Amino acid sequence: MEFEAFQSSLADPAARRSLLFRDGLPFHVLLAHQFERPDLEALCDTATAIRRLDRHDEGRPFLRGVLAERRILNLFAQPSTRTNESFVAAGEKLGASVRVVSDLRTSSFEKGETVEDSVRVLSSFYDMLVTRHHDDDFAARAAWTLSRSRRPIPVISAGSGRSEHPTQALLDVYTLRHSFAGRGGIDRKRLLFVGDIARNRAIRSLATLLLRFEIDRIDVACPKEHEPDRTFLRPFEERGVTVALHASVADAIRAVGRELDAIYITRLQREWDGPDVKPGTPEPFVLDVRHRSAIRDDCVILHPLPRINELPDAWEDHPGFVVWRQVRNGMWMRAALLATIGGAADEIVALAGRLGL
Amino acid sequence: MEFEAFQSSLADPAARRSLLFRDGLPFHVLLAHQFERPDLEALCDTATAIRRLDRHDEGRPFLRGVLAERRILNLFAQPSTRTNESFVAAGEKLGASVRVVSDLRTSSFEKGETVEDSVRVLSSFYDMLVTRHHDDDFAARAAWTLSRSRRPIPVISAGSGRSEHPTQALLDVYTLRHSFAGRGGIDRKRLLFVGDIARNRAIRSLATLLLRFEIDRIDVACPKEHEPDRTFLRPFEERGVTVALHASVADAIRAVGRELDAIYITRLQREWDGPDVKPGTPEPFVLDVRHRSAIRDDCVILHPLPRINELPDAWEDHPGFVVWRQVRNGMWMRAALLATIGGAADEIVALAGRLGL
Amino acid sequence: MEFEAFQSSLADPAARRSLLFRDGLPFHVLLAHQFERPDLEALCDTATAIRRLDRHDEGRPFLRGVLAERRILNLFAQPSTRTNESFVAAGEKLGASVRVVSDLRTSSFEKGETVEDSVRVLSSFYDMLVTRHHDDDFAARAAWTLSRSRRPIPVISAGSGRSEHPTQALLDVYTLRHSFAGRGGIDRKRLLFVGDIARNRAIRSLATLLLRFEIDRIDVACPKEHEPDRTFLRPFEERGVTVALHASVADAIRAVGRELDAIYITRLQREWDGPDVKPGTPEPFVLDVRHRSAIRDDCVILHPLPRINELPDAWEDHPGFVVWRQVRNGMWMRAALLATIGGAADEIVALAGRLGL
Repeated sequence: MEFEAFQSSLADPAARRSLLFRDGLPFHVLLAHQFERPDLEALCDTATAIRRLDRHDEGRPFLRGVLAERRILNLFAQPSTRTNESFVAAGEKLGASVRVVSDLRTSSFEKGETVEDSVRVLSSFYDMLVTRHHDDDFAARAAWTLSRSRRPIPVISAGSGRSEHPTQALLDVYTLRHSFAGRGGIDRKRLLFVGDIARNRAIRSLATLLLRFEIDRIDVACPKEHEPDRTFLRPFEERGVTVALHASVADAIRAVGRELDAIYITRLQREWDGPDVKPGTPEPFVLDVRHRSAIRDDCVILHPLPRINELPDAWEDHPGFVVWRQVRNGMWMRAALLATIGGAADEIVALAGRLGL
Repeated sequence: MEFEAFQSSLADPAARRSLLFRDGLPFHVLLAHQFERPDLEALCDTATAIRRLDRHDEGRPFLRGVLAERRILNLFAQPSTRTNESFVAAGEKLGASVRVVSDLRTSSFEKGETVEDSVRVLSSFYDMLVTRHHDDDFAARAAWTLSRSRRPIPVISAGSGRSEHPTQALLDVYTLRHSFAGRGGIDRKRLLFVGDIARNRAIRSLATLLLRFEIDRIDVACPKEHEPDRTFLRPFEERGVTVALHASVADAIRAVGRELDAIYITRLQREWDGPDVKPGTPEPFVLDVRHRSAIRDDCVILHPLPRINELPDAWEDHPGFVVWRQVRNGMWMRAALLATIGGAADEIVALAGRLGL
Repeated sequence: MEFEAFQSSLADPAARRSLLFRDGLPFHVLLAHQFERPDLEALCDTATAIRRLDRHDEGRPFLRGVLAERRILNLFAQPSTRTNESFVAAGEKLGASVRVVSDLRTSSFEKGETVEDSVRVLSSFYDMLVTRHHDDDFAARAAWTLSRSRRPIPVISAGSGRSEHPTQALLDVYTLRHSFAGRGGIDRKRLLFVGDIARNRAIRSLATLLLRFEIDRIDVACPKEHEPDRTFLRPFEERGVTVALHASVADAIRAVGRELDAIYITRLQREWDGPDVKPGTPEPFVLDVRHRSAIRDDCVILHPLPRINELPDAWEDHPGFVVWRQVRNGMWMRAALLATIGGAADEIVALAGRLGL
């Protein structure tokens, strides 16, 4: 199969599952929406089990054996310290050895070698490949290349260009499910998204996964010029989910403040507007503390970080502020993903159960 | 507590101890002078025990368990290969996993994130933070930030700006104590410092720690323009310690050569004098081999490295030449510090005793 | 012994062995031709044993103990991702901790320190040193420096300037021996080398090692301006080995195609011809697929990678295509080398035998 055929097959649910899963388990992780609801529930359960085992004297050594003697390569052509460190921590907590290669220019690309050869050579020394690249197609091309080789290994996207960041979406789903644990989970919850939704891959990937749950409506506060496009809206319309647009945070909170179960706020990615645009979120998309009385105490506040001024420090003591937990959850969810690919998820969940965690 | 209050509290011995120690053990390590004499003696004993256990077949696996499953982040914004490698070796000898992040520009600082947020995110994946930064306040700010978070972890300064390099001072104290082991320790020893003492943080930090011992006098050979200032001299005066200045090594050795127990020589940090100044120490501050007959054979020769021309190779076979031992001692002392913070020092010293080491 | 004397002693076989071996085992690895035939056979046997043990449930944990608690420094002043990763994997498969330092500018060279001091300081924290450097003499100088110190550690060259790349030659010998296992080994085999043989250190080092076997003739297809020089040819003449030159791959295959047991093809290193020369191998030195019917099915096809256009993808399904196996063999051979230096080779081979591998 040529790469173009591989790429277009990913659009079809059945073909996608056959290309990215093996024996019912994820092998390559390229797209947030490659996961169905049962996959998501299982990943969340595994993440919780790992988080609890890591605090347990019997659990910790068990975890360190899950990927012992496995070697993971983080091939991060696009620098991203925090995502990288999150994956390194996830791998090491499971006993894997994780190495980072960040400067592809020092490899043989420069001498005229193809990307495919470079990926095959480097992957020869590893058992799993985690990649981040500014090119939308890089992770898929690596997965395609390795799938055709005699020694295929899993490829996990840690962010490909502007399109996909599947593990960010997974950690957000996990944080939401965890936050709503006593309230029936994610189904029928009301979320407000704040930011330049049209070009934020974290929001787009999370929104895709929300469609795996019973959601009636989402609210969006975003600048006029970054309103969601047809590609974003169509799947919501097809599922009968209302997408309500607001011109500012203030408008949104005035309209639905006390009905909100969660606010997911992001910075405006203004570095993409040109070199002269200074970072910083304009006032209409800042979650000012004066809105605090207009939302419920159990409203969950999320932010994928980095933040600039749109989520002031003063929110830190709000009962629903889970931003730092999101960061730790990223580590647990990535560990859950690696363990699931490694075939150890069931054993992990079973041990946590046996230990009463 | 705001950062400014945290900073100024560090000047008060009792407040300092309450901010930087927990349950009698060091938690954050920001300043050489945060350690009192009993702290120093205990750290030296622990370093010796670790050094001996590392050569012992039963000791080595024990050491590898001390920080097993702990993850240390070396956040080195200012590159320093040798201090970094020394800390990595120290951590790994105790079984920790040590990761190095050196280029903060690849993180989210650039997008407008605060230093505090960056440090919190990165530290989320780690159990201890070792930092080196050109900013005098960076380590203190990191310690303050993490102390306020729900998941505080220890912060160890590996050099902050031009002001502090506490672990260099600790390794020098350890090397001196070790060298004087058969001669009653550091108390009442006579030391000569050679170099631009006013701006050398290694000398300044070590001199501070010498005040924890019974010292009557120190000698200093330094260029006129880098003579010690009032801040350096005041604590010596307050303790009744004479500081005798000399215009050259030759002058100093002529005056007190055979009374010296140790010579601590450094390069002149001429890169700070401007871009056109070539490295290299002028003749008056070079320890020429012709001085060899004018000092005792048991006079200890120390240098914090790197050296240029001020300590010629010909000194290597002098019985008191301990420069390479200093390098190894840096590793042992940093391991002792990490083990002490981790609460394992007593157990380490006890095992070494039980094994007769 | 001064460095110049050390260097010139390496030209004499007996002096070389005494400088680079200890107790019959390699200590420093600087030159491909420091290995005699029994050394090569033993290294290949060890590599095979390691490769098989790594797939065995009892073998793997044994391997992880071979260099457990040993620390290896990869000091790669000249970037080379794949050689570096190959050594990291080799070390980690034996349980060593491997660290990479790649930017010597961040160390103290800049402040005026000598190379000898820098190497001694860094090596203080390690048990083995693997180096790659653009300077032909760097590895030898490191070995000389450390041999004189009180704490000598082995130095392994991972490529020094344009002259030596001993581990590439070892992995090629291993791949050839493995490929000819059912056909009496390397003795009396017929090889064709394609590329700019005069300046390709992989070919030069491999050719040197072929002289350890019973070879009657080698064929070479290379551009007129890169024909082998006297230094290359003399040892072959002295051993009575014919070196037959051809002006193109087509000429060579027309002359000896069906007699060839192996073709070792390389890219032309055109980046050395100046900044304006584009990479890419001209047609006469490309192994076109139309030659396929003119060579035997058991002719082995090797390439040290990276390749450009000289070995098209269409060769991948040829039964003799072992290029990807070469990459993995590099890891196994480097592991064999590290294990041999560490004194564990006999035990490894014995365990593989006992397990019937």
